[in-house]
Amino acid sequence: MTGRTVAVAGVTHSTQVRVYYEDTDAAGIVYYANFLKFAERGRTEMLRSLGFLHHEIEANTGVIFAVRWLAVDYIQPARLDDLLRIDTRVVELGAATLRIEQQIRRDDDVLVTTDILVACVGRDGKPRRVPDGMRAALAKTAPAAPSIVVKTP
Amino acid sequence: MTGRTVAVAGVTHSTQVRVYYEDTDAAGIVYYANFLKFAERGRTEMLRSLGFLHHEIEANTGVIFAVRWLAVDYIQPARLDDLLRIDTRVVELGAATLRIEQQIRRDDDVLVTTDILVACVGRDGKPRRVPDGMRAALAKTAPAAPSIVVKTP
Amino acid sequence: MTGRTVAVAGVTHSTQVRVYYEDTDAAGIVYYANFLKFAERGRTEMLRSLGFLHHEIEANTGVIFAVRWLAVDYIQPARLDDLLRIDTRVVELGAATLRIEQQIRRDDDVLVTTDILVACVGRDGKPRRVPDGMRAALAKTAPAAPSIVVKTP
Amino acid sequence: MTGRTVAVAGVTHSTQVRVYYEDTDAAGIVYYANFLKFAERGRTEMLRSLGFLHHEIEANTGVIFAVRWLAVDYIQPARLDDLLRIDTRVVELGAATLRIEQQIRRDDDVLVTTDILVACVGRDGKPRRVPDGMRAALAKTAPAAPSIVVKTP
Repeated sequence: MTGRTVAVAGVTHSTQVRVYYEDTDAAGIVYYANFLKFAERGRTEMLRSLGFLHHEIEANTGVIFAVRWLAVDYIQPARLDDLLRIDTRVVELGAATLRIEQQIRRDDDVLVTTDILVACVGRDGKPRRVPDGMRAALAKTAPAAPSIVVKTP
Repeated sequence: MTGRTVAVAGVTHSTQVRVYYEDTDAAGIVYYANFLKFAERGRTEMLRSLGFLHHEIEANTGVIFAVRWLAVDYIQPARLDDLLRIDTRVVELGAATLRIEQQIRRDDDVLVTTDILVACVGRDGKPRRVPDGMRAALAKTAPAAPSIVVKTP
Repeated sequence: MTGRTVAVAGVTHSTQVRVYYEDTDAAGIVYYANFLKFAERGRTEMLRSLGFLHHEIEANTGVIFAVRWLAVDYIQPARLDDLLRIDTRVVELGAATLRIEQQIRRDDDVLVTTDILVACVGRDGKPRRVPDGMRAALAKTAPAAPSIVVKTP
Repeated sequence: MTGRTVAVAGVTHSTQVRVYYEDTDAAGIVYYANFLKFAERGRTEMLRSLGFLHHEIEANTGVIFAVRWLAVDYIQPARLDDLLRIDTRVVELGAATLRIEQQIRRDDDVLVTTDILVACVGRDGKPRRVPDGMRAALAKTAPAAPSIVVKTP
């Protein structure tokens, strides 16, 4: 599977976050950058649910994750005391990258969507392969991968 | 009870927080100011467990909470992926203030302790009385208040 | 000019930010969401340089700014003690929106680029026109606007 | 000077910070924990003015700074667009610690005061002596140190 990007129809992982004062700003709503903190919590919890903890991944494989690119749609604001649900889905699995789509919802309303490309790198910033164990675990969450796209990592 | 401060032996409320990348700094540990975010989450969850939400308190009574004074002991660092427990206890209930002690623990280790004086104020910053319903609820968490100290609010 | 978007070749505004511990994470670099704080400082300073302060704009016109959409490229990491320069340029001026491109640089290296669509809204979240004074001032920064695109605000 | 704490009447270092949306919360004022970010910027700039950068100190001596204890008085709130001045003064210089007092002001008003004990530690968290060069530079800022207190580091 080296050098290929798998377009995966992965199972969605969900986690919840509460909005506290720390997340809001003087406009009375969640500050725009803080949704990226929520999104990162969602990705971290997805990995944790598969048995992967950031500090163990780095200790075992030398790999850390670096965001390479992202796009965010801000559809509706979130407010103090809101309970938000973060849905996280790996949509492409490259040799050294994960493309992840996330929705941040309050009940039935989608407030924010993100499209994020994460790269595996070493402490030196250089690209590293997605660790094998993680690749296998993420593949399991994507039993019905509908297409495969060759891509230089 | 007006104009008095009740020294309460209150029941402790506990909540949990996970340490994410957002909480850490380049020294590899939780950034010192971020423990105050954790502490505020703990106080917010204590109030929520009693039925009080910040935005409802303000809508119903015009009261918001402002920290007037705090002291923090940093005993041990917290690290990425740590699961922390925040124990929150109201130790004094004044006419317009709450004094709250909190411990942030990892398993049996106390990492950080805080001593915080919170004042009830209006949007104009002027002191307001602790809302009656909240006072009653906090008093219930303190059945064995050992002493009463007269204090100007 | 109502209902039109002006593609502007605006003068670039620059401001500087220093990287402190608060901005970094346990990977030893600036946390990805924090570049959006830097970018917002850059946009705020661009407006300030034209005589517009957020709290005065809201007091005078009821308008606040809400990010509707953004894309970010993370090209190189920033580190503790780095002095960064934020270049900010309004590239489109709609009836109720500003499209802004920003570069975050360290010396000659571009570390991060952002493409952000900001909307003028009221506290109710509903769209509001770009305040006239601000429109005029931003137009002055774009004397050679090369093209005009009709666009529903 | 080993094992002694010098009570210093040090020169005050000043730096300025602007309040941005990122610093505020839904109560319309600067979030309480964020004043500790401002305070840390002030301490960092004081050291930088003496020629010491955090990442160079660590590279050269293995020393990083860890806050051991702090107390903060919140006297008045700060608001969006405020320009704040942070006055930083080393008041005691121990073998392995610095005690620092800071005032955060807006014009003539003192908004927040802090009293912070910072320890020099290694990455292992163990105490390290204040680096000699830094000790000498900090001593120069305190020509009229009025008293010397013996203290176990």
